Amino acid sequence: MNAIGVDVGGTKIAAAVVSPEGGILNEVRYPTQAVPPNRLVATIAQAISEVKDRYAVGGVCLAVPGLILASENKVIFAPNLHEIENIPLDEEIGGRTGMSVTVENDANAAAWGEFRFGSGKDIEHLVFITLGTGVGGGVITHGVLLRGAQGAGGELGHVTVDSTGPRCGCGNHGCLEAFASGTAIQRFAREVANDRPGSALGRLAIERQVLGEDVTRLAQEGDEASVYVLHEAGRWLGIGLAGFVNTFNPEVIAVGGGASRAGEFVLGPARKEVQLRARSPSRDLVEIKGATLGPESGVLGAAALARSEDGEYILGPSKRVA
Amino acid sequence: MNAIGVDVGGTKIAAAVVSPEGGILNEVRYPTQAVPPNRLVATIAQAISEVKDRYAVGGVCLAVPGLILASENKVIFAPNLHEIENIPLDEEIGGRTGMSVTVENDANAAAWGEFRFGSGKDIEHLVFITLGTGVGGGVITHGVLLRGAQGAGGELGHVTVDSTGPRCGCGNHGCLEAFASGTAIQRFAREVANDRPGSALGRLAIERQVLGEDVTRLAQEGDEASVYVLHEAGRWLGIGLAGFVNTFNPEVIAVGGGASRAGEFVLGPARKEVQLRARSPSRDLVEIKGATLGPESGVLGAAALARSEDGEYILGPSKRVA
Repeated sequence: MNAIGVDVGGTKIAAAVVSPEGGILNEVRYPTQAVPPNRLVATIAQAISEVKDRYAVGGVCLAVPGLILASENKVIFAPNLHEIENIPLDEEIGGRTGMSVTVENDANAAAWGEFRFGSGKDIEHLVFITLGTGVGGGVITHGVLLRGAQGAGGELGHVTVDSTGPRCGCGNHGCLEAFASGTAIQRFAREVANDRPGSALGRLAIERQVLGEDVTRLAQEGDEASVYVLHEAGRWLGIGLAGFVNTFNPEVIAVGGGASRAGEFVLGPARKEVQLRARSPSRDLVEIKGATLGPESGVLGAAALARSEDGEYILGPSKRVA
Repeated sequence: MNAIGVDVGGTKIAAAVVSPEGGILNEVRYPTQAVPPNRLVATIAQAISEVKDRYAVGGVCLAVPGLILASENKVIFAPNLHEIENIPLDEEIGGRTGMSVTVENDANAAAWGEFRFGSGKDIEHLVFITLGTGVGGGVITHGVLLRGAQGAGGELGHVTVDSTGPRCGCGNHGCLEAFASGTAIQRFAREVANDRPGSALGRLAIERQVLGEDVTRLAQEGDEASVYVLHEAGRWLGIGLAGFVNTFNPEVIAVGGGASRAGEFVLGPARKEVQLRARSPSRDLVEIKGATLGPESGVLGAAALARSEDGEYILGPSKRVA
């Protein structure tokens, strides 16, 4: 039986019918910004009905960027998606589609996608980090998705790496997210551009707002200021990853999300920092690499977490339980 | 069937026969310092044979303070216990006792003891922190002991809370251990005693070396300098715990080890910091409290992790797998 994964994002809603082997049989996308006010639930339901078409589908899982309460299938807090906060999505969307609906944090779902079908498909212990506007995380340990008691676990972007560091969007100071997210890279790029006005980065910053992708492009073109910005983000990422290596002793840490497109400019310094800070034998084992599924990890992982009415995982448990 | 848990510590070797209900049926203790050179393996084997006596015992697990490689039943690194490093303990000790022998990190074993029989016995997600000479940790998530790929996971004392903080014994800078261990408390007490020579702490420090237990006693007697020392350790502990709350979304964080005898002087500020730094709903759920089994958590947890030759947990899996 197939399952539907829905990736409810800040920019798009993607719904996909996924086969037990991880194949995407059908997919639809709606730009989130085109959704009229108070029509988010209806749009998600419509995407599900539309993508389902003639496929045999056993259930749906929604991947949502926010804090979820898994036991009640509720989103507690989702920036920019307030319409779906604190309502029972299994009833609201299940009622409109006739499907069994569950809810998962988007980074947890993406981690599970990488684990089942991507960078973690041959291992039992995966740490997944996504570097986007924020820093999200998901952990699979001993083949089990780490959700925690309320489904709010795996918030790896919000561990403190510098207790007096910059204030994070979550209210804490010095979170990993405040140093290694795309937003942090942009902020640091502005500072470095100011300090080095003669660099390619500095010259661009005089013309217009520098985006994360500009920093990557300029680094690839050899601009040292831009390389420095990405190295710093990578160094801080590595400080956080070293803690995860000591905590989880994983075979693989997979780094995804937009800022991960900076590739080795970020991953190289992160690996170096892990070697300096983490302990043997964990640091000797761990492989730190880019995630492999790209933006499809969300729908794939969500589909693999979809459950039937009686709680069974539709795409099969294999030996690897969620 | 009963199992034997052996707590191989820096000060004592304790071996106990434990019933499936967590009762200690028999226990022997040897002071580690009385063990002649190159007799550690022999002494452990002797303790096992002695405690076994007339009890029906299905296997033994050794809890060792060090880095272990679980798949090979080896201790990679154990300060002050070099004799048992890098030898196959299942063969060495199994051969002498005729028992099935496995090896576990001591903090992981203690965490499992608390989970099965103590502060975590009614929950599924427990973070255990032990504040001793160092800071050890053990995590149970979804009922599973987090060992990681090599059995080296759960090293919660070695997550970075301040990237430029004091150098830790592990080589890293600013580990939680460097701020919240008994050793860190003693070091900080010396600094505060120097700054406040008129305080009870300052006066004691002129007479003799101040121990962690002195700081607790003086704090209980109302010495503000000593209270400050413990509050600072608690605040740093809380910075680390906040990250664990966001990572694991546990029902309980249990704090054990010698320095935890400072009780609320440490736990109060730790709780406050968690409320400031961790996210809802995880921070609203988590209960931060003292561990309940005291020094017996090691033998109890080790016994509960003992396996028969065919890999079955002797004290029963219940629904809660290890």
